[in-house]
Amino acid sequence: MPNSFGHLFRITTWGESHGPAIGVTIDGCPPRLPISAAEIQAELDRRRPGQSDITTPRKEADSVEILSGVYEGMTTGTPIALMVRNTDQRSSAYNEMKAAFRPSHADFTYQTKFGIRDPNGGGRSSARETIGRVAAGAIAKKILGLGGLEIRAYITRVHDIEAPAEALVEFPSLAEVEATAVRCPHAATAAAMIERIKAVRSEGDSVGGVIQCRVRGVPVGLGEPVFDRLEADLAKAMLSLPATKGFEIGSGFAGTRLRGSEHNDLFENRDGHIRTVTNRSGGVQGGISNGEELVFNVAFKPTATILQAQATVDLAGQPAELMGKGRHDPCVVPRAVPIVEAMAALVLLDHWMRDSAQNRTFEF
Amino acid sequence: MPNSFGHLFRITTWGESHGPAIGVTIDGCPPRLPISAAEIQAELDRRRPGQSDITTPRKEADSVEILSGVYEGMTTGTPIALMVRNTDQRSSAYNEMKAAFRPSHADFTYQTKFGIRDPNGGGRSSARETIGRVAAGAIAKKILGLGGLEIRAYITRVHDIEAPAEALVEFPSLAEVEATAVRCPHAATAAAMIERIKAVRSEGDSVGGVIQCRVRGVPVGLGEPVFDRLEADLAKAMLSLPATKGFEIGSGFAGTRLRGSEHNDLFENRDGHIRTVTNRSGGVQGGISNGEELVFNVAFKPTATILQAQATVDLAGQPAELMGKGRHDPCVVPRAVPIVEAMAALVLLDHWMRDSAQNRTFEF
Amino acid sequence: MPNSFGHLFRITTWGESHGPAIGVTIDGCPPRLPISAAEIQAELDRRRPGQSDITTPRKEADSVEILSGVYEGMTTGTPIALMVRNTDQRSSAYNEMKAAFRPSHADFTYQTKFGIRDPNGGGRSSARETIGRVAAGAIAKKILGLGGLEIRAYITRVHDIEAPAEALVEFPSLAEVEATAVRCPHAATAAAMIERIKAVRSEGDSVGGVIQCRVRGVPVGLGEPVFDRLEADLAKAMLSLPATKGFEIGSGFAGTRLRGSEHNDLFENRDGHIRTVTNRSGGVQGGISNGEELVFNVAFKPTATILQAQATVDLAGQPAELMGKGRHDPCVVPRAVPIVEAMAALVLLDHWMRDSAQNRTFEF
Amino acid sequence: MPNSFGHLFRITTWGESHGPAIGVTIDGCPPRLPISAAEIQAELDRRRPGQSDITTPRKEADSVEILSGVYEGMTTGTPIALMVRNTDQRSSAYNEMKAAFRPSHADFTYQTKFGIRDPNGGGRSSARETIGRVAAGAIAKKILGLGGLEIRAYITRVHDIEAPAEALVEFPSLAEVEATAVRCPHAATAAAMIERIKAVRSEGDSVGGVIQCRVRGVPVGLGEPVFDRLEADLAKAMLSLPATKGFEIGSGFAGTRLRGSEHNDLFENRDGHIRTVTNRSGGVQGGISNGEELVFNVAFKPTATILQAQATVDLAGQPAELMGKGRHDPCVVPRAVPIVEAMAALVLLDHWMRDSAQNRTFEF
Repeated sequence: MPNSFGHLFRITTWGESHGPAIGVTIDGCPPRLPISAAEIQAELDRRRPGQSDITTPRKEADSVEILSGVYEGMTTGTPIALMVRNTDQRSSAYNEMKAAFRPSHADFTYQTKFGIRDPNGGGRSSARETIGRVAAGAIAKKILGLGGLEIRAYITRVHDIEAPAEALVEFPSLAEVEATAVRCPHAATAAAMIERIKAVRSEGDSVGGVIQCRVRGVPVGLGEPVFDRLEADLAKAMLSLPATKGFEIGSGFAGTRLRGSEHNDLFENRDGHIRTVTNRSGGVQGGISNGEELVFNVAFKPTATILQAQATVDLAGQPAELMGKGRHDPCVVPRAVPIVEAMAALVLLDHWMRDSAQNRTFEF
Repeated sequence: MPNSFGHLFRITTWGESHGPAIGVTIDGCPPRLPISAAEIQAELDRRRPGQSDITTPRKEADSVEILSGVYEGMTTGTPIALMVRNTDQRSSAYNEMKAAFRPSHADFTYQTKFGIRDPNGGGRSSARETIGRVAAGAIAKKILGLGGLEIRAYITRVHDIEAPAEALVEFPSLAEVEATAVRCPHAATAAAMIERIKAVRSEGDSVGGVIQCRVRGVPVGLGEPVFDRLEADLAKAMLSLPATKGFEIGSGFAGTRLRGSEHNDLFENRDGHIRTVTNRSGGVQGGISNGEELVFNVAFKPTATILQAQATVDLAGQPAELMGKGRHDPCVVPRAVPIVEAMAALVLLDHWMRDSAQNRTFEF
Repeated sequence: MPNSFGHLFRITTWGESHGPAIGVTIDGCPPRLPISAAEIQAELDRRRPGQSDITTPRKEADSVEILSGVYEGMTTGTPIALMVRNTDQRSSAYNEMKAAFRPSHADFTYQTKFGIRDPNGGGRSSARETIGRVAAGAIAKKILGLGGLEIRAYITRVHDIEAPAEALVEFPSLAEVEATAVRCPHAATAAAMIERIKAVRSEGDSVGGVIQCRVRGVPVGLGEPVFDRLEADLAKAMLSLPATKGFEIGSGFAGTRLRGSEHNDLFENRDGHIRTVTNRSGGVQGGISNGEELVFNVAFKPTATILQAQATVDLAGQPAELMGKGRHDPCVVPRAVPIVEAMAALVLLDHWMRDSAQNRTFEF
Repeated sequence: MPNSFGHLFRITTWGESHGPAIGVTIDGCPPRLPISAAEIQAELDRRRPGQSDITTPRKEADSVEILSGVYEGMTTGTPIALMVRNTDQRSSAYNEMKAAFRPSHADFTYQTKFGIRDPNGGGRSSARETIGRVAAGAIAKKILGLGGLEIRAYITRVHDIEAPAEALVEFPSLAEVEATAVRCPHAATAAAMIERIKAVRSEGDSVGGVIQCRVRGVPVGLGEPVFDRLEADLAKAMLSLPATKGFEIGSGFAGTRLRGSEHNDLFENRDGHIRTVTNRSGGVQGGISNGEELVFNVAFKPTATILQAQATVDLAGQPAELMGKGRHDPCVVPRAVPIVEAMAALVLLDHWMRDSAQNRTFEF
């Protein structure tokens, strides 16, 4: 079950970076949803390698095949199996890595935990496993979209280059986000970010950054306290992504510097609806969505693979030196944007169905 | 299942702030563990109200009763039911809150989600629900302790008063943490924190802060990628706690400002073991523990209940004003320290058992 | 989780036969259901010992206490904790059984599996653990009843005394079932059954029998293939009960003696509804309810405890002899009737909520 | 999750009868198990159509492809994805069935539950979905075999032709079972069964029967009371199979005709081990394996598809007549033998890992 996520809209992913294929099975999808491979492909294309000059040059079409669960263009309620064949597998690039542990990678922990690992491209620990998440997330996003939700992730910071807060007040459009390869909706900042990424790449180095994700149109009531609070499941979803090191919702860490009298979101009646004047809660109160915008940030560390010599040890624990090879993103954050959206969609759809099951199946 | 946590060492909690009792059932506890009510009580006493002059004066003995699963002082492998009777219930303090939604509380979301709520003391959304977590965590901690793990949480910041980094290099002792009511192991900082908490209380206000938790002695191999990464389950555990707004592991948000060449943890052979020179990973790589210290931070917002008049709306959505009453902590963070430890213990024990099941049941 | 059952309406039970108490927590109960302790007590009274002269004379009030999840007589959507204190615990009757394994009981397997067991009254393996199931089932039954479902279990056979098939064509009323202590709705057969039970008891022996359960008013569509077919979950529910050895639905084992042309249930249009002419399917087709009556049988072995000397071994594996003591039912089947109904209710309600979540949350 | 089975060794199946492919993902498989596609194929070949003159002539190679989780011939602990492409899809045979509901099939219930169905070959409700179970079961069987367990299923009855009890006293060898197409280890009975199957086929009719499954070498201690008793999970596993109507373990329904004094399995010390003299318990006591042979029976109804005209209704509920077409087994029971073994293996392996996790991870 470590490779399954969700309770009612439940996905199970499989596949290694350089194995024959990568895939996902979705169990519990509502029936009669019109869906096409092209719609899923559109999201996969957003995370695909080689889409711009700041991403890895690995060439993968990441072409998705629907193997079950869809009949004449509509979901049937049975499991939806999606598969992407791996094509551009240059395992030779990893020969050296079979013999030594790459620093800040999963080589050592996988080897020790399982006593065996597929070293090619990182095997299962490769970010290619997120293909299944994005494919399943595309379906979740479509359902949520029909329900009036809009999910938008974008980069707010790369290294120390940060978009100004005032540029992010409005909910950015998809076009604004997709306008640049770096997926920061503030054009000037985006340009600086791209420049920085190219600069560190030229030095064989890497950088990380922060993704912000916002969701509007969330109904009041999603989230299942005490353990499956909405923010708890979002945090888990985000920290389950490769390279993530932090999550914060609403005011987050900065909010801990405020007093209660400054931090509380007062209620008001706006146009006949109960709303909060501010949104330091980030859209959740008591673990349940309150109808305001969901706002959360995710921290991504700098890519572990760098094209520089690094000290490490070999499988026997003896000192060794590794020079990064393979084709890697100097900054994974831009390609992580659609992945963050996918995970958010999976959490929200699952919670929507859970809330409905308990609270709308019966009317007493 | 929203009130259950864990897969193999699985707890289910129940109970409202002002109901007859609060409790927890632990399913899957290993048998033949010597355990007494007194050992569980010791942890409960750490989170109990009224333990110092900076916490709520609500008087609750929080006396635990073992109802099943223990025979002649040893666990039997059957479900362990633990119960704490509520005694000091002054529901009258909440009369006013039945009619209006407290800002930044769960009143509005519970009412809207379920169409009903127990308003006394916040009902199920009260932090009293963490009693069950702490009670179960006490057993988990004992098992982990026998396995050589040591879990230590403490406060690093209250409002803007922060312990100096150099004071936290060493793993603090339990005595150092418990030396002051505020549970910051750096005495001078602790004194300043207490002063600040008393000051804001005198103004009817509140503050938040940050808890750091470290675990040493963690074996290599805990964590179940891709979704049940150790840090993902820790993040979920922490964000499932009332008043939390953020989680970061290892370098966290600050690490996103480093380059890969600065951030990577190089491997070395130390005393015959494969270790990392630095620990920006925070003890996990690829979602699996690497044998280094687990280090993570949790952000707690300022207490929502303040003894000041606040604008809000009533159940009909009409403008109202609320003046906080009841007995509340001006800063919940000190009492959250044992709760964070309990949740960490629950995650680690569950993962230990999961790892063992897959990787140590069979030898091929 | 071995002590939890259900996915969305999920119960967790705890407690030993001679421990302080027995209980259950229900997670996921729909909110705003009016419920009282008296309604739950009514079902508990049906399974209670000492209710007639053919059951064990153990005197237990089995008085239920609602500890959480109900506010002013209505469920709140939070966990409902129910507890029954044990009162009549004569553990001394079990002293002898601490030293030797009772034949066809769980003493040996518990001892070997866990390395420890609570020997008093069988500890967790006692049928007293079904108190939690019946208490939770009472709530499930009420919800299903409001939804138009009627669940009726009754005895069709004790030892070799069987009710005539023609007497069971009509759906028996609750009054007909409860008319006799043996809960067979056919009066003449019931009298013979009671006579038989008294006869074997006078010989210190025991008998088993068969319970049939029928449910009418089931909507079309409950059941989640391929693994969580409705009959699969019913089979699991029934085989999870102490003393059960078999389950069959619809035509069951007898149906395997028919040809397809004899066995198939032809469809017809009856009063504007698609119905089957016969019901050899027992109300399920392809694992999903088809709107016909659910009909299934459960086999209960003769009570393992008999008041005769039996050969066995002691804890060291040495030959020993045991003479059954304690207070036991010479035939558990009559008291199992409300338990079978409770388990059926738990399965059906959980499936109703699951079906609703997937198929009625969204309309595309 | 309705298409997932197991907790720690967990499978998720997908695929429709006439879709592009059928598959399964195994999550939680122990690492370092040597496994090849050929070993899995061997089990698939046992359930494959067209393997004898008493099965459907549909020609399917059912050739399995390993897509992930195996590296250089060894499992890696990551998800194992297995896929079988469908090749012989004559959907035209089902044109008529799109318009009317086949009696005793899943057409009506799927259509009503989901509002849509894939009518070709029964879509997801086809027995072809068991391919995934058998493929995963092959791996489970291998692991169990290395652990000393032997699982043997065979037919004891077809229609009213039953193997004599004395012929089944000994644990049949695989060769004895596979000696005939009907998989009854008693040659004379097998011949009669084959004759009967051919006879009913020539009349366009069908028959059912009973499979017995025995497992030897089971360690004491498998089974997780109170809900996940070993027999409860076996019952669920078996009733989750298409066409099953009943399950009994040990003495089963017949045992209810015995007295306790006749039914109890007395303990004895045999060669230094605690054993039972008889095995009416069927290898489980208190829901936990007791080291004796597991013995259970599964009832399979006659194949619903018969080549005779049958009255039914169309999608609008109007009277219609259907003449069975397509290629079907006149008796599904022989091909169900490896499927029953597969499900038994999945249950036992999962329980072995669960037992190990709780009872052998720690030694206090």
